Amino acid sequence: MNSFGDHWVYTSFGESHSAAIGGVLDGVPAGMRIDFAMIRDALNRRAGRLSTAQLTNSVAHQQRSSLTAQLTNSAAVSPRAVREADEVEWLSGVIGANGEAAKDCSELITLGTPIAFLIRNRDARPEDYEALKHSFRQGHADFTYQAKYGVRDYRGGGRASARETAARVVAGNIAAQHLAQQGIHIQARLIRVGDETRPEHFDELIARYRAEGDSIGGIIACEVTGLPIGLGEPIFDKLQAHLAFAILSINACKGFDYGSGFEGVSQPGSVANQHSGGLLGGITDGTPLTFRCVFKPTPTTPKSLAQLQKEQLNAQMENAQMANGKIVNRSDTCIAVRAVPVVEAMTALVLADFVM
Amino acid sequence: MNSFGDHWVYTSFGESHSAAIGGVLDGVPAGMRIDFAMIRDALNRRAGRLSTAQLTNSVAHQQRSSLTAQLTNSAAVSPRAVREADEVEWLSGVIGANGEAAKDCSELITLGTPIAFLIRNRDARPEDYEALKHSFRQGHADFTYQAKYGVRDYRGGGRASARETAARVVAGNIAAQHLAQQGIHIQARLIRVGDETRPEHFDELIARYRAEGDSIGGIIACEVTGLPIGLGEPIFDKLQAHLAFAILSINACKGFDYGSGFEGVSQPGSVANQHSGGLLGGITDGTPLTFRCVFKPTPTTPKSLAQLQKEQLNAQMENAQMANGKIVNRSDTCIAVRAVPVVEAMTALVLADFVM
Amino acid sequence: MNSFGDHWVYTSFGESHSAAIGGVLDGVPAGMRIDFAMIRDALNRRAGRLSTAQLTNSVAHQQRSSLTAQLTNSAAVSPRAVREADEVEWLSGVIGANGEAAKDCSELITLGTPIAFLIRNRDARPEDYEALKHSFRQGHADFTYQAKYGVRDYRGGGRASARETAARVVAGNIAAQHLAQQGIHIQARLIRVGDETRPEHFDELIARYRAEGDSIGGIIACEVTGLPIGLGEPIFDKLQAHLAFAILSINACKGFDYGSGFEGVSQPGSVANQHSGGLLGGITDGTPLTFRCVFKPTPTTPKSLAQLQKEQLNAQMENAQMANGKIVNRSDTCIAVRAVPVVEAMTALVLADFVM
Amino acid sequence: MNSFGDHWVYTSFGESHSAAIGGVLDGVPAGMRIDFAMIRDALNRRAGRLSTAQLTNSVAHQQRSSLTAQLTNSAAVSPRAVREADEVEWLSGVIGANGEAAKDCSELITLGTPIAFLIRNRDARPEDYEALKHSFRQGHADFTYQAKYGVRDYRGGGRASARETAARVVAGNIAAQHLAQQGIHIQARLIRVGDETRPEHFDELIARYRAEGDSIGGIIACEVTGLPIGLGEPIFDKLQAHLAFAILSINACKGFDYGSGFEGVSQPGSVANQHSGGLLGGITDGTPLTFRCVFKPTPTTPKSLAQLQKEQLNAQMENAQMANGKIVNRSDTCIAVRAVPVVEAMTALVLADFVM
Repeated sequence: MNSFGDHWVYTSFGESHSAAIGGVLDGVPAGMRIDFAMIRDALNRRAGRLSTAQLTNSVAHQQRSSLTAQLTNSAAVSPRAVREADEVEWLSGVIGANGEAAKDCSELITLGTPIAFLIRNRDARPEDYEALKHSFRQGHADFTYQAKYGVRDYRGGGRASARETAARVVAGNIAAQHLAQQGIHIQARLIRVGDETRPEHFDELIARYRAEGDSIGGIIACEVTGLPIGLGEPIFDKLQAHLAFAILSINACKGFDYGSGFEGVSQPGSVANQHSGGLLGGITDGTPLTFRCVFKPTPTTPKSLAQLQKEQLNAQMENAQMANGKIVNRSDTCIAVRAVPVVEAMTALVLADFVM
Repeated sequence: MNSFGDHWVYTSFGESHSAAIGGVLDGVPAGMRIDFAMIRDALNRRAGRLSTAQLTNSVAHQQRSSLTAQLTNSAAVSPRAVREADEVEWLSGVIGANGEAAKDCSELITLGTPIAFLIRNRDARPEDYEALKHSFRQGHADFTYQAKYGVRDYRGGGRASARETAARVVAGNIAAQHLAQQGIHIQARLIRVGDETRPEHFDELIARYRAEGDSIGGIIACEVTGLPIGLGEPIFDKLQAHLAFAILSINACKGFDYGSGFEGVSQPGSVANQHSGGLLGGITDGTPLTFRCVFKPTPTTPKSLAQLQKEQLNAQMENAQMANGKIVNRSDTCIAVRAVPVVEAMTALVLADFVM
Repeated sequence: MNSFGDHWVYTSFGESHSAAIGGVLDGVPAGMRIDFAMIRDALNRRAGRLSTAQLTNSVAHQQRSSLTAQLTNSAAVSPRAVREADEVEWLSGVIGANGEAAKDCSELITLGTPIAFLIRNRDARPEDYEALKHSFRQGHADFTYQAKYGVRDYRGGGRASARETAARVVAGNIAAQHLAQQGIHIQARLIRVGDETRPEHFDELIARYRAEGDSIGGIIACEVTGLPIGLGEPIFDKLQAHLAFAILSINACKGFDYGSGFEGVSQPGSVANQHSGGLLGGITDGTPLTFRCVFKPTPTTPKSLAQLQKEQLNAQMENAQMANGKIVNRSDTCIAVRAVPVVEAMTALVLADFVM
Repeated sequence: MNSFGDHWVYTSFGESHSAAIGGVLDGVPAGMRIDFAMIRDALNRRAGRLSTAQLTNSVAHQQRSSLTAQLTNSAAVSPRAVREADEVEWLSGVIGANGEAAKDCSELITLGTPIAFLIRNRDARPEDYEALKHSFRQGHADFTYQAKYGVRDYRGGGRASARETAARVVAGNIAAQHLAQQGIHIQARLIRVGDETRPEHFDELIARYRAEGDSIGGIIACEVTGLPIGLGEPIFDKLQAHLAFAILSINACKGFDYGSGFEGVSQPGSVANQHSGGLLGGITDGTPLTFRCVFKPTPTTPKSLAQLQKEQLNAQMENAQMANGKIVNRSDTCIAVRAVPVVEAMTALVLADFVM
């Protein structure tokens, strides 16, 4: 239910109002080195702490790390926002390279035992529950949760929060580092916002929708290089099936295709550019693996919220600002922007499972 | 590896050259009635035994059953082809309504124990192995199987045969009947062939590609009505994730989306026609569930095969004709045609698993 | 529910009144050679086709094979009994060493795909169901099945038949051959019948109980040699836990211990003969693995049945004789005798799973 | 690997030297009330904080709670020992009855989401690793861990610590409370120490062994009342098989039997006192479920350690005293004493899984 994978197993926990969110990652081999700066970089991208261009262009990790450092130190970011950055606390499964406790290290070494970690939530106040109690946001899971779990859903529903994806990013980044150490590299990027396909115009378009109090969808492309031939299983456990499962489990994702995908329907079988997407019969063929996925616009826009009662809206907007700072608001106009590191994380979890 | 599902578990076996293909379906409750004519109907659709119009239009089951009967009795179909129809042999888990052996019944009753069944293969001859030994068909799994399993793949590779989907159709149809008895109905249909979206023009277009020795892709839409609110789980086990996993496990499927899907990327969040596809937060919301999937063109076309050695081509074409009769050749020009009952079968397996 | 194992997965099917019992064995590597004579030997031991001495002494396989041949050809065994021998039909996953169909071979080669096999049941007659319908045998699962599954249990209950263990023996023997090819050997033997621990007195004691229309329990010891150091996992998946799970799943088994076991309770920690049983912390330590298990007496004895209505008793006795011939009756007095190859089979399935 | 159960899933994490040990419990229904005092009581029993008589007699929970309170406040217990009591920190999945944060409550309410909790370890110092590095304790997992995981095992090996069972007790006690709310009660007790079967003599015997620097094994009996008829599955998933799996996964457990068990081997089938142990054919029959399990003596006794180098011994003894105070030392002479609440916990986890 809250676990993912067979050999590299990630178990997730935490609600938006609980003491913490976090996870347990089981199956990681002993002796692997984990660079914590790379995890922080992925968390910052998920938190919308960089501009879209910074987030989506193929800037190297080193460059992004330095941007992150600037941002974190910038006077333009309130101390509150800095404090809110997702701090990972390591509970087990790792030690420092010199045997010191995990919390004091920038590089960790795995022990081969389950890696448990948490990210503390800010203090939850009982009145927060009340605010959520009477709201069914359009296009959100509020309604289905209420129907499925009954009266208590306004608290349990905290599980549906996008915040849960922060823990996925931590676990997935450990998997990505494991893969990178074997020469396998995962790179996702935003390739379309609305009808716009030129990256250099994305920010402008998103700003326009935001100014109108509206939101817009996006498409992410992901490429994986360095995969060995032979990953995947013939019948049900085709690699594309597991990738689709992983990607469609991300909030707001509405579709997945690979290789020639949906667009390939127009091309006859004899045409050369039918490309495999790196998979034949469910198994990697040694060429780069390529897939796409689509994210719907945020359903809760100021425009759509206009009909909801005023005070509730204000509370929500204030929460959003408190949580994320100004930059985030733009990202939330197009949630595909912040989904990029989550797509990479889920891809890494699937591939690490198969590589084991 | 060869099992699918958690509570309604389907285990598949058989190669194209083994004594039989078949499956074991575990988790089916005791006392359920199975109408064998409905299974036969689905198998005939998968075998391409009806015209595209008959296969893809929303004709009722009764009507199709009568078409099947006509076809089977028709003088135009050679006795050989009739003999080749997939005959299901029931090994366990079912008895006749009056306690008689399963083989003598048109209606079976489940015992609550694993339902095992098989479909015999025609006699395999050692020389068949030789023919496959030296062939790497373009765009097929031959290459990846060879790389993954080594020299023996030309025999084990029989597992990749589309024939395996016949057993999925049997298991899936039992699931579909179980769902139908609870008011849940699954209906897939071909909505696009190449760039053509008018069903009444599909046959003509497919015939044109076939005449040219070429092939073409297609898109299938599937709708499920009658689902209770609350199926699906919040985090990883979202219903759409499991459906994508199931559909992407079908040979030649290249993509899956639901609700507004890939096309929704152009629509701002405020637009009313953003539709949920029956799912919010991974959980059914009581509206019809709708998804689409795309199938690539057959990669092995006469046109693409021209460069392969002559005798090999002849053998393959002869095999194809022997196996399926003339009708099938058209279907194979657009494999999406025959995939329709397989999409329904996999959808039924997923939903039966969640309904349990 | 009807599957066993994680990487070497055995799925079981069949009722005592269905067309067949059988199984699907998934995860067996490609290219393994299977000696069918060894499977037949294990099936004969399970069927009680040898004397207790022959069954339980450490006679080599070759010797037993020759005994089996004598027995099968012996005039003392009715043609009917010979016909009843469990004939395995191979459906998939294996071919002959020279590419011929599996049914014609004494040695099979695996393809790396699921190995499906069946053993046909004799024709079931509807009146058999009636006989079972009104009987609750003391100490049998009849009562619990009725309570769990409802009215239909007298048919589904066929699943509880000891006949199901024949399919376990087939699957387990394939696993045992795989292990033997890696130098791992499993040997179970009967070490106690009632209070008797001298093997050469077992037959006499069993004969005495049989003459009295009574039954008696037994203890089986199993030793595995050649195991590599390091099999087993530290916390829940300790090797002894998986072995206990496997052995306790055999009908009539009431207990499992390993190493010093229950008898070790009297020995202080300082005493040298505290032996590990080949496992420390759940992981093999390179010394022979040793465990014991206990089987209760057959609960349905002529003595205990005396109080049941006469005609039912007669029908059951006749069935038992038809099914197994005279030799079996002695075995059924002490079901531990026939459980020996089943213990070996389940042990092999567990170990093959861990070796993978 | 570190998860247990199918529907009520417990995932364990933590080493003896990591920041914390803990677990995630998934599948607990929403709205269940958890009495934290009962969890604390079970943790205290596991920590050996009561006399053997207090621990093993059938004293009611209320009575034990009051003993615990006395003990905790007692001047005889050093402040250090009090501080060492296992403090559970709740991370997610529960809230206070009035919506307050979990940490402030004695009664918690579940949200239906994963319940994550941790118990902090005392600060680990690098020099602790060094001490362990050169020690292979006789009869411990040190050797097998080294062989399986390589050089790093002296850190990862912290996973084998009996401390891990504290987290099992927390998770299992939640399961036990869930079962108790449905009328199902689990009661384990020590029935034998060495050859002694009179509980009132256990303390004396254990004291004698302790005085000699030796250790002794014990047998625990467990009874479950109030189980509905029909729990368990016919073939592999027999309830006794799952119980054996759970119990044999506890450190130092060497055997499991149920009903008449190993002792039933001497009784003919006709004898009335063959008892089922509450299970027939793997399924509960409505009578109390009874099983036994045996725990070996602590292998590392002062007597056996005499041959190890002096300084190492001293360090270990000091550690043991620091960790547990004086009371514990007696328990460690017979680890079966402290295993009682662990047996109850594992039993509860299995039964909660089946009741779901």
